[in-house]
Amino acid sequence: MSLLLEGETIEDLQCNGLQIIQKKQGFRFGVDAVLLANFVKAKKEDKIIDLGTGTGIIPILLSSKTKAREIIGIDIQEDLIQMAKRSIELNSLSDRVRMDLKDIRELSDFPKDSFDLVTSNPPYKPIGTGVRNELLQKDISRHEVLCTLEDVIRLAERLLKTNGQFFMVHKPERLADIMCLLRKYKIEPKCLQFIHPKPYKKPYILLIHATKYGGKDLKILPPHYLNDFEGKDS
Amino acid sequence: MSLLLEGETIEDLQCNGLQIIQKKQGFRFGVDAVLLANFVKAKKEDKIIDLGTGTGIIPILLSSKTKAREIIGIDIQEDLIQMAKRSIELNSLSDRVRMDLKDIRELSDFPKDSFDLVTSNPPYKPIGTGVRNELLQKDISRHEVLCTLEDVIRLAERLLKTNGQFFMVHKPERLADIMCLLRKYKIEPKCLQFIHPKPYKKPYILLIHATKYGGKDLKILPPHYLNDFEGKDS
Repeated sequence: MSLLLEGETIEDLQCNGLQIIQKKQGFRFGVDAVLLANFVKAKKEDKIIDLGTGTGIIPILLSSKTKAREIIGIDIQEDLIQMAKRSIELNSLSDRVRMDLKDIRELSDFPKDSFDLVTSNPPYKPIGTGVRNELLQKDISRHEVLCTLEDVIRLAERLLKTNGQFFMVHKPERLADIMCLLRKYKIEPKCLQFIHPKPYKKPYILLIHATKYGGKDLKILPPHYLNDFEGKDS
Repeated sequence: MSLLLEGETIEDLQCNGLQIIQKKQGFRFGVDAVLLANFVKAKKEDKIIDLGTGTGIIPILLSSKTKAREIIGIDIQEDLIQMAKRSIELNSLSDRVRMDLKDIRELSDFPKDSFDLVTSNPPYKPIGTGVRNELLQKDISRHEVLCTLEDVIRLAERLLKTNGQFFMVHKPERLADIMCLLRKYKIEPKCLQFIHPKPYKKPYILLIHATKYGGKDLKILPPHYLNDFEGKDS
């Protein structure tokens, strides 16, 4: 039986032969998820959970980029989770990677203090800002319809062990919200990097790493430019 | 009578003939203050106050770079205020610029809701971090001995009119503290710029603009590089 349904394609992730199933139309993974996966520093045997995993792109990339023991992706959208499960099968990753249908807001569905690392590429835009997307799947993935920034950070605090690591990609205009919510839930910001399209352009996304119950010690990394001065890919 | 005391020098500010008196040894103004003065956007007739003014560098530069009606610099160090007063005289600015000896922590010494704009280049380092300076004047200017970040932001909230503007230069490693304290005192971050020595280096200071009782709308500007790719001054 084919792993591919009508309206879906298989993309090569250009990373150790990994592939991913996506819809031709609907939510498709972006460079943001790839940058986040590259930003994550995991230890051997870590237990990782990805909140709002969508196509499963982050767990699939982390299976290759880290030596984590167990990687779980959760999402509230059943069709995405079903598709992500087929991507796991396609890559023969089921011994280390699992996809679960879960609502991030249902805190009691999640175990306490049990993960070494939490990742998230959450919806970026508060309701009431930006252009809403007519396609429900895209809208849920981009706007805070079913999951706010605070929902993500609150759940990360619950899931992480003490000194567990949180890695997130988000928009620069939410920086104050991100800093204040991380402090509110005692996940201390440790490392921040801005991603710019080019060296003289403003940043269009940011990567942040924070530690549950960590001490104050924030580093801001050199900027990352998607293209260099001459417009070449970096 | 000479305006210059023993151990002092006059520096040319390279800005409309402005000059400033500094000690040969002791606290000397840096590029940070000049960058902050360039970052400030003031309206004609604005009333401005600079917290922890030191040599008076920021009020003196703003007298030329803006059409503000009145610019006050305050500092807790009497010898610095006396020297800054002589710089005002040297530049014949006493009709618009004034220096006052004040302690930022004595909130009741300051009027409420009476300034359009507050600037500050405060001490950067919390006590207990960094190398303390044996020279008391330098130590007070660099460490939070007599004035913490929270003291500055608390006073800014008191001094500013509703929708008044706050401009500050500070260290990137304090970013989370800055964002959370601004929100605590309802001075909403509006614009942030990082200053890097070169395009591929991490930022070494940041400039922030925030508005008292403003709405959420944070912009992060393109980075400013002190030197470009070839190492030339920008």
